[in-house]
Amino acid sequence: MRPSGRAIDALRPVFIQPGFAHHAEGSALIRMGGTEVLCAATVETRVPSFLRGKGQGWVTAEYGMLPRATHSRGQREAARGKQTGRTQEIQRLIARALRAVVDLKALGEISVTVDCDVLNADGGTRCAAITGAWVALRLALEKLVRDGTLPALPIKGQVAAISCGLTDDGPVLDLDYREDSTASADANFVLTADGGIVEIQGTAEKDPFTEAQFNTLMRLARTGTAELFRIQTAIVEEALKA
Amino acid sequence: MRPSGRAIDALRPVFIQPGFAHHAEGSALIRMGGTEVLCAATVETRVPSFLRGKGQGWVTAEYGMLPRATHSRGQREAARGKQTGRTQEIQRLIARALRAVVDLKALGEISVTVDCDVLNADGGTRCAAITGAWVALRLALEKLVRDGTLPALPIKGQVAAISCGLTDDGPVLDLDYREDSTASADANFVLTADGGIVEIQGTAEKDPFTEAQFNTLMRLARTGTAELFRIQTAIVEEALKA
Amino acid sequence: MRPSGRAIDALRPVFIQPGFAHHAEGSALIRMGGTEVLCAATVETRVPSFLRGKGQGWVTAEYGMLPRATHSRGQREAARGKQTGRTQEIQRLIARALRAVVDLKALGEISVTVDCDVLNADGGTRCAAITGAWVALRLALEKLVRDGTLPALPIKGQVAAISCGLTDDGPVLDLDYREDSTASADANFVLTADGGIVEIQGTAEKDPFTEAQFNTLMRLARTGTAELFRIQTAIVEEALKA
Amino acid sequence: MRPSGRAIDALRPVFIQPGFAHHAEGSALIRMGGTEVLCAATVETRVPSFLRGKGQGWVTAEYGMLPRATHSRGQREAARGKQTGRTQEIQRLIARALRAVVDLKALGEISVTVDCDVLNADGGTRCAAITGAWVALRLALEKLVRDGTLPALPIKGQVAAISCGLTDDGPVLDLDYREDSTASADANFVLTADGGIVEIQGTAEKDPFTEAQFNTLMRLARTGTAELFRIQTAIVEEALKA
Amino acid sequence: MRPSGRAIDALRPVFIQPGFAHHAEGSALIRMGGTEVLCAATVETRVPSFLRGKGQGWVTAEYGMLPRATHSRGQREAARGKQTGRTQEIQRLIARALRAVVDLKALGEISVTVDCDVLNADGGTRCAAITGAWVALRLALEKLVRDGTLPALPIKGQVAAISCGLTDDGPVLDLDYREDSTASADANFVLTADGGIVEIQGTAEKDPFTEAQFNTLMRLARTGTAELFRIQTAIVEEALKA
Amino acid sequence: MRPSGRAIDALRPVFIQPGFAHHAEGSALIRMGGTEVLCAATVETRVPSFLRGKGQGWVTAEYGMLPRATHSRGQREAARGKQTGRTQEIQRLIARALRAVVDLKALGEISVTVDCDVLNADGGTRCAAITGAWVALRLALEKLVRDGTLPALPIKGQVAAISCGLTDDGPVLDLDYREDSTASADANFVLTADGGIVEIQGTAEKDPFTEAQFNTLMRLARTGTAELFRIQTAIVEEALKA
Repeated sequence: MRPSGRAIDALRPVFIQPGFAHHAEGSALIRMGGTEVLCAATVETRVPSFLRGKGQGWVTAEYGMLPRATHSRGQREAARGKQTGRTQEIQRLIARALRAVVDLKALGEISVTVDCDVLNADGGTRCAAITGAWVALRLALEKLVRDGTLPALPIKGQVAAISCGLTDDGPVLDLDYREDSTASADANFVLTADGGIVEIQGTAEKDPFTEAQFNTLMRLARTGTAELFRIQTAIVEEALKA
Repeated sequence: MRPSGRAIDALRPVFIQPGFAHHAEGSALIRMGGTEVLCAATVETRVPSFLRGKGQGWVTAEYGMLPRATHSRGQREAARGKQTGRTQEIQRLIARALRAVVDLKALGEISVTVDCDVLNADGGTRCAAITGAWVALRLALEKLVRDGTLPALPIKGQVAAISCGLTDDGPVLDLDYREDSTASADANFVLTADGGIVEIQGTAEKDPFTEAQFNTLMRLARTGTAELFRIQTAIVEEALKA
Repeated sequence: MRPSGRAIDALRPVFIQPGFAHHAEGSALIRMGGTEVLCAATVETRVPSFLRGKGQGWVTAEYGMLPRATHSRGQREAARGKQTGRTQEIQRLIARALRAVVDLKALGEISVTVDCDVLNADGGTRCAAITGAWVALRLALEKLVRDGTLPALPIKGQVAAISCGLTDDGPVLDLDYREDSTASADANFVLTADGGIVEIQGTAEKDPFTEAQFNTLMRLARTGTAELFRIQTAIVEEALKA
Repeated sequence: MRPSGRAIDALRPVFIQPGFAHHAEGSALIRMGGTEVLCAATVETRVPSFLRGKGQGWVTAEYGMLPRATHSRGQREAARGKQTGRTQEIQRLIARALRAVVDLKALGEISVTVDCDVLNADGGTRCAAITGAWVALRLALEKLVRDGTLPALPIKGQVAAISCGLTDDGPVLDLDYREDSTASADANFVLTADGGIVEIQGTAEKDPFTEAQFNTLMRLARTGTAELFRIQTAIVEEALKA
Repeated sequence: MRPSGRAIDALRPVFIQPGFAHHAEGSALIRMGGTEVLCAATVETRVPSFLRGKGQGWVTAEYGMLPRATHSRGQREAARGKQTGRTQEIQRLIARALRAVVDLKALGEISVTVDCDVLNADGGTRCAAITGAWVALRLALEKLVRDGTLPALPIKGQVAAISCGLTDDGPVLDLDYREDSTASADANFVLTADGGIVEIQGTAEKDPFTEAQFNTLMRLARTGTAELFRIQTAIVEEALKA
Repeated sequence: MRPSGRAIDALRPVFIQPGFAHHAEGSALIRMGGTEVLCAATVETRVPSFLRGKGQGWVTAEYGMLPRATHSRGQREAARGKQTGRTQEIQRLIARALRAVVDLKALGEISVTVDCDVLNADGGTRCAAITGAWVALRLALEKLVRDGTLPALPIKGQVAAISCGLTDDGPVLDLDYREDSTASADANFVLTADGGIVEIQGTAEKDPFTEAQFNTLMRLARTGTAELFRIQTAIVEEALKA
């Protein structure tokens, strides 16, 4: 029995609210249990200098956490004067995940920045950010199609992410903070709806783990992302109707 | 007729949701029309070094704005590596406003930091932050009384803030972004429920204004804060019942 | 009786020395009692990027304090690696004050930066900076007229600033450091020679103050700035003759 | 046929020179083909503040790249004023890899910092750094045993790392820069000599990859690290004899 | 004939005004022609951590230049966020020069910081700073003797500095900006009144120079500092009488 | 007898390995006893903005020290977020030394950056860096001639540097760390093969020194650099044959 009473392979309740950021071209507030991330996509008709004149677009991401999103208050990165290594690692991960499903050539000389800001944290913030960021990005790109900027959606697939880990209850899906902070190993899986792997990050927090254990975690991740893909699709459809 | 259709002396719809930040000792999400600020109070049993051993507490504030809270995306301060002058000016203002109504001696060697993060911006964010921060602070201090840390609420009064300005429609209350960006002058009033003035910041954006105009703005501010005090009180009472 | 022996409505001795900064297009060393600020105006034939091609000029200001301008030595901001919030707040205030009396359209694509550096501090440095900066700015703009760059002075008015406060001696004009550090409230008034208000910053340092008290402070400020306007005018006339 | 003429499952020539950093408690210069990393372990008898008084030690790592280690010169991070996200990500990875095989309790209140500086880069620098860092760390800990500071080696295992990737030649082991920059996916495997997995980082650079492809990469990694473990062991034995 | 009409071995007019910084324990405004540097010495009864408990004192210096001390405005270092290499080089030089004539053991656990801020620059600012800093330091130490903190002056000698250079007029003493910016080589000499050399910094700006040329520059420097030592002594004597 | 057993006027064993940095246009690893510096020259076909369109080139240098190049580990400058004053002073010195022997007009609009990174430090790192940097620069410029970018070598001379100092053994050549840290004075001489002086930096670490002592140090420096010029020439000739 997990601390939360959830089954081994059960996600926390997932809720996605599109349009939370009023001004963004696309946005989504995603909640996974006690974790809450605001994802806002900004479209700009310019690209970073290394891409200028190459006829392709770019997708990037930034990540932040409000100082009191966590159990005890963390120092504000803006006050500290720099982003932590953890923050930079996460925002690079989110950006790679999104780029893996966007056709950058079809996007043309447009860049999209997705800001993922954690309002409340209870484990799994980077995975929630990726899952929510895809919705925000999709809505922003739909807008470019609707207003005639793009002839078709430059999206190659659907991406979502989930963490799994080895806890005292064995391998489990979607760790909350309590589980995450005591797991002997955990892994983040970024997967696509058609079965592809975009990114795997598995880390032994205490002792090395085995290949068999790793494969079990991947099975759990498949189960979890299947559910996330259904939710993303439903939300996007509903938002587009509105 | 104002662009929003509001009367000269009408506030935008105000909504305060206590407890939005799950982990904070006190928190409030305040909405004033399209402006939305998350205020989260953190209690720590230590004081800054300049107060150590002086038997008194401290209240401070930090302010931030999500990059896409605004019409066009602003650079993330954490990425930029420093807080703008505007940010620092605002967080110093919020902190002074809160300290003006707290009995720091009665607080003892405890510090409270109130983080005010703008999720959506449509003018008046610093005033909304002050009004919401007072609720977050009050709830955090109530908790200290309830859990026996403090014998009584170390609060001397109730504080709220509102902006007024000189627009093409004459002097108006509670400017939204459209009004704020074209006003010839504006002023922020930080007032207490018993009629005191905590802070006045009046600025001619274009041409100097007269003392008569300034007095009209102060009248409007009194009207606006009277309403804000009623809303603060109602929310705190309700939150304490829960 | 005030600590300095001054009357309630008496300024400290004011002395303005034009031309102190040899290379600046206009400069003034202003002394108000023990406070001494060097104001140096720099003219450049370019504008910030947000104004490029808009056919108007810009006026900005920077503020600094020598480390040992104060009773005890403060850390050098250049060594610390950033300007404090206080510094940024003050330099933004000085710049707004100057812009309120300059016709930016008439200035054309020219920018003026006024550096205000405190050599000795005894209270009221930001007000002295504004009063001295106007002289430096005026002299720099006169030079542009004399050398034919501008057809006429792009100045709409004359600006000066003074602080007033509530002390144990009641409301007083032009606080020195001793008074400032113990006042229960103080206010800085930036006024124009034709009676306009450019900026008001009133702050309750301890307890909220009343509207009546605030009005008394404004009366005192009018008295003080009237004297400052006379001194500015005399100095400018004398400097232009030389 | 790979560009270098290597077989699919062939490492580049590996050479490890212990003692390159004269002053370090343990050091190793590792070369893998054209990649060259200097790893230097520093022992200090203190621990970071979050571990003080907990009776355990700490192992951390820092990573850097000389500006002209690469084909075109990169900006010096010290001149730029901050470490890139990539640098921080890599040094966190190296540190986790080392901590996974150290018994921190047995280490006692001692910290070891391993500096990994890339002198020449031709792909796979983070993996070479981990493999070399383990040698430097081992030699430093042996020194603590020899001089009586520790009763026994606080090492639980042997760790090495290797990259594999999907190229036009199919799945290959130990990518050099040419392969790395054109691979459609790559993965870094941090493994232990007794078969454990410490870290897996798999990333689709272009298109998502399949689970079967991923498993092939892991097979290759096992082959490569088996060879690295043999080399590490031989070098350490030889160094200890000297 | 030099551009200024001065003889080859003539100093610019030198003027030293003690006490310019009201709050400093010792201060001097030094003018050498158009160069003007405010030197302010701060005494603190603590030493840097690397000297704690060693029963000796420390003397250090900081250097700055007001943005418009120069012909065209320079960026404010505090705004830029860091001190230039030039600034750091100069303040290290000033500090070494002062420490060479102070008996740090006799000073006891006291530190003196001398701030040297350039108000107007016309060449030779670092040398003027050293010459003025010695006066500020001496006055501050005299104060420690007068108030009984120290039994005797912990000063071993008198130090002053002057620049010499190879110009189109041959080797000359005390270069102004015009000469300095076109000299083919220049050298700064920091000398003591009893004939010792504290520091020599000779630099070929264009072509290497010969040993004979260098020796001529040193002769000139001896002449110049002899005059500076007389002026320093006269000013200190006069200041102590007052 | 010196601690190392060397004669008063003996250099440490010098060894220069060209080509150590694989990708650099010219490079040299220089060892002087226990001091080891990697010098890598980068050629770029652009010049800094202050030289654009002036038809001349530029030569600059950067200096760094690996954290554990020293007896005890120093903080990594990239992690600290800024370069120390010492680092900046040294890299400015190296750059001036190199520019003194390059014909910048003949170089054309090309810039060369020489990175000097200390791998192991045992005194004299800045001098070794200059001596090695000249070799790296020379090889890079030879490459520009060989590939037809330049018609002839834009080099006016040969530069090398050596430190001398006053120790308990009297004046000695080429101080190692033990000598350097206890010398009463030391001086760095940057000289050219045809007898010119490029830079002299003499510093009294404890007591002022005399002109006679200084002249003895310069004699020793001449002896030392004569040997360095022979070694540089031999290495360059050999490298060009290869």
